[in-house]
Amino acid sequence: MDKKAKGGLSRRAVLAGAAAGVVAPVAVASAAGSSLAAAAGLTRQLTLYADYVPGTTRVGYGLEPGKPTIPGPLLEMYEGDTFEIELVNNTDQRLSIHPHGVLYDTESDGSPFNNSFNNPGETKTYTWKTRAAYQAANGLWMPGSAGYWHYHDHAFGGDHGTVGLLKGLYGGLIVRKRGDLLPSKTFTVVFTEMWINHQTAPDTPIFEANLGQRVEFLCIGHGSLMHTFHLHAHRWADTRTGMLTSATDNAPVIDNKTLDPGCSFGFQVIAGDVVGPGAWMYHCHVQQHSDDGMSGVFLVRGADGGMPAGAQDAIDRFKGHHHGTAAAEPPTGPPPTVATDASAKTAKASMPGMADMPGMDMSDMDMTGHQH
Amino acid sequence: MDKKAKGGLSRRAVLAGAAAGVVAPVAVASAAGSSLAAAAGLTRQLTLYADYVPGTTRVGYGLEPGKPTIPGPLLEMYEGDTFEIELVNNTDQRLSIHPHGVLYDTESDGSPFNNSFNNPGETKTYTWKTRAAYQAANGLWMPGSAGYWHYHDHAFGGDHGTVGLLKGLYGGLIVRKRGDLLPSKTFTVVFTEMWINHQTAPDTPIFEANLGQRVEFLCIGHGSLMHTFHLHAHRWADTRTGMLTSATDNAPVIDNKTLDPGCSFGFQVIAGDVVGPGAWMYHCHVQQHSDDGMSGVFLVRGADGGMPAGAQDAIDRFKGHHHGTAAAEPPTGPPPTVATDASAKTAKASMPGMADMPGMDMSDMDMTGHQH
Amino acid sequence: MDKKAKGGLSRRAVLAGAAAGVVAPVAVASAAGSSLAAAAGLTRQLTLYADYVPGTTRVGYGLEPGKPTIPGPLLEMYEGDTFEIELVNNTDQRLSIHPHGVLYDTESDGSPFNNSFNNPGETKTYTWKTRAAYQAANGLWMPGSAGYWHYHDHAFGGDHGTVGLLKGLYGGLIVRKRGDLLPSKTFTVVFTEMWINHQTAPDTPIFEANLGQRVEFLCIGHGSLMHTFHLHAHRWADTRTGMLTSATDNAPVIDNKTLDPGCSFGFQVIAGDVVGPGAWMYHCHVQQHSDDGMSGVFLVRGADGGMPAGAQDAIDRFKGHHHGTAAAEPPTGPPPTVATDASAKTAKASMPGMADMPGMDMSDMDMTGHQH
Repeated sequence: MDKKAKGGLSRRAVLAGAAAGVVAPVAVASAAGSSLAAAAGLTRQLTLYADYVPGTTRVGYGLEPGKPTIPGPLLEMYEGDTFEIELVNNTDQRLSIHPHGVLYDTESDGSPFNNSFNNPGETKTYTWKTRAAYQAANGLWMPGSAGYWHYHDHAFGGDHGTVGLLKGLYGGLIVRKRGDLLPSKTFTVVFTEMWINHQTAPDTPIFEANLGQRVEFLCIGHGSLMHTFHLHAHRWADTRTGMLTSATDNAPVIDNKTLDPGCSFGFQVIAGDVVGPGAWMYHCHVQQHSDDGMSGVFLVRGADGGMPAGAQDAIDRFKGHHHGTAAAEPPTGPPPTVATDASAKTAKASMPGMADMPGMDMSDMDMTGHQH
Repeated sequence: MDKKAKGGLSRRAVLAGAAAGVVAPVAVASAAGSSLAAAAGLTRQLTLYADYVPGTTRVGYGLEPGKPTIPGPLLEMYEGDTFEIELVNNTDQRLSIHPHGVLYDTESDGSPFNNSFNNPGETKTYTWKTRAAYQAANGLWMPGSAGYWHYHDHAFGGDHGTVGLLKGLYGGLIVRKRGDLLPSKTFTVVFTEMWINHQTAPDTPIFEANLGQRVEFLCIGHGSLMHTFHLHAHRWADTRTGMLTSATDNAPVIDNKTLDPGCSFGFQVIAGDVVGPGAWMYHCHVQQHSDDGMSGVFLVRGADGGMPAGAQDAIDRFKGHHHGTAAAEPPTGPPPTVATDASAKTAKASMPGMADMPGMDMSDMDMTGHQH
Repeated sequence: MDKKAKGGLSRRAVLAGAAAGVVAPVAVASAAGSSLAAAAGLTRQLTLYADYVPGTTRVGYGLEPGKPTIPGPLLEMYEGDTFEIELVNNTDQRLSIHPHGVLYDTESDGSPFNNSFNNPGETKTYTWKTRAAYQAANGLWMPGSAGYWHYHDHAFGGDHGTVGLLKGLYGGLIVRKRGDLLPSKTFTVVFTEMWINHQTAPDTPIFEANLGQRVEFLCIGHGSLMHTFHLHAHRWADTRTGMLTSATDNAPVIDNKTLDPGCSFGFQVIAGDVVGPGAWMYHCHVQQHSDDGMSGVFLVRGADGGMPAGAQDAIDRFKGHHHGTAAAEPPTGPPPTVATDASAKTAKASMPGMADMPGMDMSDMDMTGHQH
């Protein structure tokens, strides 16, 4: 995936003083200022291919021709990095790629409005930049690019990408700050009309982690319906990171959040923290939607990767529940990850044997809640 | 209500230095760490009964057999506390209790997916734990359990509790931090389909307080429709507490908030602060919904409990407006409160004569806005 | 517009030490306390006229009889200020004005519930107060009035203003804190049913700014439908101001936000920052809504006001796309601005030649993102 990366320097944050509060973001901003941070960013070229999913009328983005995934590849950047995305349109329809959150000029807008799209068979490059926050005249800060974002078609079959989204042309995009904790795994969850990642239960994704792993959910809403995302037995702060800045941070803590079209958010949890391993539901909490198939499984295995008691039975029960709106077309499998920084931990998550290092993640888990 | 509480120690926070900023939460975390805080939590056993509301097809949770309320009892905890809830199913249908925000293992999940429910006539215990925030490797904090939450059926007539919610099987759950201000009263407001607490105007709740009392709203969304909660003449910060951490806290201040299915939030206001006593509307701001009966009254009496000028006329006008979708079944009256901490102020709110102590609450009211 | 202002003192914040962090808000609160700040506020009388839009069945608020705009005039205050609004009802229907966020007694509630409205032909005064945040007993702060709010009818053709909103009786209201940065321009964007400011594309507003100008969006939702607001190539923090309080502020940064009925939010962006000048789309991201005409143009001109390359082509393409639901009635033109403080910068925005001072605003723009 990293065939054209310009930079080879390992940019993994080294978190020396964990007890000393928020470390790296402060250091970046105070030592260098936003302009230097931007200058220091990596630029990565990446080729994406838009193809029909074989045997279906669906269309997805992929890292190789003829191998689209729905959602498309998860793209990751650090503030200051740039993606130069060469999009190859292998379909017979006009389409594009439009990102949320990052910086682009009108030529990379991805909208027919700005004449920014790929005709059938055409290849076109879209450039996405990012930046750090910077201070304004009254001492407040204009926000940077870090966030849980997404990208999608804005041209297939219309001016707003409505048909492209229904076909499957969407994916996740994460911009991190230096010092952000890297998860063992990131799960991209897209609610579109009555689908989760273009599937309905029981064919929706089973997201797996081991007890104590730090895992990340990136939740994206699309289509024309209201949704809410709910995860059982885990919760997060309604902040940029899902975490709090101090023990007295007054940000809301939630486990259910509105996920309307075009919105996205993300958070990290320690899999099974206090609650233990098991099969946990995630679902849209709009009752008609969950009843009609918008639910899936977050499988928290034991710390050693073993299947916890009762989990297989739960999954079997789940698999036995078919819904009237079940997808008629096959799934494409989980999306791969591409980061501007080749050393990013999440990039490793797709390599068997490296993603599940409980020793690394267990340090974040606190089982003391069991003591009472 | 407190028949099985294990701990008798008064745990009411003593707020010695009000001017010194946020007090108790910091002390808890810095002096003891989250594990000790958890260890110090109370465990309370509680029995809830699921029963048909007499003379109706509705079903609610109650503290006594045959006496369900809709919403069910308001349950309150401090971070570190545990509820062991014995649920007695007095109906002829499968049902359960599933909480948001708190910690539970798969056996207490309340979902058929995890085989966690009560068969007809069955009694089963569900355990809910809570914890404080704790620091992660980069200095940020993983969130604790404090929040404005709720609980509901997840098994009646299906896998997601859709029928149980329509029947009335839901209630409020609040997890507080030490040092949080305790209100004189808490009002639980549940928007489900086109109902407020299973009623439509003019049968929706009239929430009453005296001028200057600190009162709390816990707002919960259920069903399959989008809602927004609006309260006249009062506003709150979009934070965990509805308050700000400093004069320069940059959190949004709002008086109207999306309340989609499965979502919940809460806040405290000083009744009639600056605006004075009177009858104030609260309603869903989706126009079709307010027109069809999703509105109610927040009655702010005088500081001495007297009826303010014009308020009875307003209520009479309100009561005269009948809506086509008015409920055919009688209401169940306001829900009682159960706290893990027997000394919690809100628990007193249900005792006549103790809830309305204006001397205690007037200190929070600031009428200086009138001076101009 | 300022015909009855009582105070002539310039209250424009002087921001002496921009590098020293948040300046004015702290000073106000610590030096004077909220009561003095409130006492120091200005009171302004203002007359608004509710009239039918000539040649249509629409109704709007205006600053002169017979000249309504949709949205109505943008009203601005500082915390501590008071508006005394004399509303003249020039229509043949009952109507009112009901504000969000600010302080009012029951007589100024604007609801038939409180007998607060204008009969046909009647003139009535509504008083809106504001206040600063103040500290509560546990050190947290009860929120003040500062926020991005709105006002609307609550009486035309019913009890909740549903018909009045459909007619066009709504407008923007901003309460600022001392020290808040003032924008060059404020754009009021109201999503009501399938309209933006009562128009559908291609007749929706084209909001114009010059490269580097600090501009403000005030987004308001009305009606009975769910919406989400999306702006291309710009983003904001999900805070009161759209800005962050520090480089490590953990607030979410977004470019798409749910805008359900009765909700409102606002933010400031530097027009074209990093991304450059051009024609950028803003639209509802509910796909059916954007397809049916809920989109418009944010035109970022060059720093000298010149038309950027490609922008006219984009606008021409946009204007060529007619939608089936296009409005049959003519627009009213952009709304004027009225501030309690006559020196407010935004008030100048309506004066030709003064709004576009790039020298003043360019200081906030950072083009360093281009350096890589």
